Amino acid sequence: MNNFQRIVLASRPKGVVSTDNFRLETVAVPEISDGQVLVRNHYLSLDPYMRMRMEDVKSYAAPQALDEVMIGGTAGEVIASKNPKFSVGDKVVGMLGWSEVAVSDGSMLKTVDTTHIPLSAYLGAVGMPGMTAWYGLTQIMAPKAGDTVAVSAASGAVGSVVGQLARMRGCRVVGIAGGKEKCDYVVNTLGFDACIDYKGGNLFKDVKAAAPNGIDCLFENVGGVVMDSVLARMNPYGRIAMCGLISGYDGVPMPIHNIHAVLSMRLTMRGFIVSEHMELWPEGLGELGQLVASGKLIFRETIADGLSAAPEAFLGLLRGKNFGKQLVKLI
Amino acid sequence: MNNFQRIVLASRPKGVVSTDNFRLETVAVPEISDGQVLVRNHYLSLDPYMRMRMEDVKSYAAPQALDEVMIGGTAGEVIASKNPKFSVGDKVVGMLGWSEVAVSDGSMLKTVDTTHIPLSAYLGAVGMPGMTAWYGLTQIMAPKAGDTVAVSAASGAVGSVVGQLARMRGCRVVGIAGGKEKCDYVVNTLGFDACIDYKGGNLFKDVKAAAPNGIDCLFENVGGVVMDSVLARMNPYGRIAMCGLISGYDGVPMPIHNIHAVLSMRLTMRGFIVSEHMELWPEGLGELGQLVASGKLIFRETIADGLSAAPEAFLGLLRGKNFGKQLVKLI
Repeated sequence: MNNFQRIVLASRPKGVVSTDNFRLETVAVPEISDGQVLVRNHYLSLDPYMRMRMEDVKSYAAPQALDEVMIGGTAGEVIASKNPKFSVGDKVVGMLGWSEVAVSDGSMLKTVDTTHIPLSAYLGAVGMPGMTAWYGLTQIMAPKAGDTVAVSAASGAVGSVVGQLARMRGCRVVGIAGGKEKCDYVVNTLGFDACIDYKGGNLFKDVKAAAPNGIDCLFENVGGVVMDSVLARMNPYGRIAMCGLISGYDGVPMPIHNIHAVLSMRLTMRGFIVSEHMELWPEGLGELGQLVASGKLIFRETIADGLSAAPEAFLGLLRGKNFGKQLVKLI
Repeated sequence: MNNFQRIVLASRPKGVVSTDNFRLETVAVPEISDGQVLVRNHYLSLDPYMRMRMEDVKSYAAPQALDEVMIGGTAGEVIASKNPKFSVGDKVVGMLGWSEVAVSDGSMLKTVDTTHIPLSAYLGAVGMPGMTAWYGLTQIMAPKAGDTVAVSAASGAVGSVVGQLARMRGCRVVGIAGGKEKCDYVVNTLGFDACIDYKGGNLFKDVKAAAPNGIDCLFENVGGVVMDSVLARMNPYGRIAMCGLISGYDGVPMPIHNIHAVLSMRLTMRGFIVSEHMELWPEGLGELGQLVASGKLIFRETIADGLSAAPEAFLGLLRGKNFGKQLVKLI
């Protein structure tokens, strides 16, 4: 293997992301220096947060630089090492981006055990999405048994874990997802108490019917009218973990009309970025890893084939075309 | 005095409140029974929260009943007592409503000392509005010295106290108010660092200019575009005390467009009702009372004359016609 492929950000989107915003490049495999490792990525993780990084705006992280490899979580294997902490053949997860091969100094690379947990799960239920679910649930919503918990994007990599963890804690869990197929999966496979199809035309009525005792906790991934439908049913002292607002990432206005619920119901709403709470990852990933290894936490993946499929798969993710965790298989 | 006047809620408003929603009645002064006191109200407090109580909707408190005396804070004097805790001549504050005379069982009535603090101040800076400011500041925003604090309705009974307390804690304080006269007062008399006239036509630019280092804390009384203009400038980990949304109380839609700041800046937004935190009132009122008695906390009142002026004064309050604490003088 002398050359490999990678994808860089070619231009910033004007509104909706297009495949033209990306550029596939072929480059030579570099030599590594002392302390470095060379990784062959097996899976690339596609996640909604990447959309925000494509914009050149003030946010929680620096924008993705133009003409550089797109940011992204990866899982792969060490194929050469001049770092005593890593050996050839080690399975590793990191943030090596949209690239078949990458060099790392090992500082952000983690060796993982694939004996009981599949490599790809370290990008989903036992990785950043799972930790995102765990953090919002345990640190912000903190539901008690008997509470009603609402989760938007319920069939997704994050939402599916939120709901299952809440069920294990004795909550009534109401999901919101797009389409009958996803809703059926959320109820029948993931075990949520109810799931509302936001495309069904009766969002507000359906949320009310699915949460007859009101809603105590909301894990918000979507924003806009989906969020408004839950705000309208929040109970006093409810907690809202603000994780994502995917409905507005392409610049479509998504005003919130029911903000008055924050006042009248004395709600607490908090935004968070799970990478700012690394001190909790060992605890959270410990719980998630055990649940996945024992088959108690169910997850689903949509896998695109080959690096060149990544831009189209990413566009699909932003439109909800994925079903569960969106990955790109590179090898 | 055989008869007195009172005002009841005659009908619920359809959109904008009208004076027709109220009815003035003349009734006989009642005899009091054992345990009761008869109070002659001197001042009636008018507050934005009353607008929400006029609606028959699920909220933090039961709606104001039709054909009953309008809810409201009062300050007055005991004119007859069959309760050993109260003597004729005692100055008292309570929630006796829009009425010249009222009977109380004493349970919600508090004797106050008017030696160093004027009676009317117990309805403002040393009463519920002052406590509202103190609670939101100390329990939700918790600013550090050097933080920038934004306050909407800055010249009002609550906002004026928020800003002065924040200045005493070493913060840069930016007010938002309606009109040049109020803004001049907020800066020149109350000592805020800056005040933006939301009617000035450059709200977003003006907020940005007044808060060059961004905004760490927001005390929100208004909602709508005023809130959006501050959300756009919030710093990471900012705190928002949601106290009121007066711009939407008459049913005018007031969507929030910048909710994404809660996510990108990892903000915490919390709604509160100060009457649910009575355990903190002694501490808060202690601080506020000392500051008013020593002249360090400045407040301003707009006083309507006579009970029959209350409905028109209340309508004015909802349109921002008052300047500082809106009271009705009954005697």
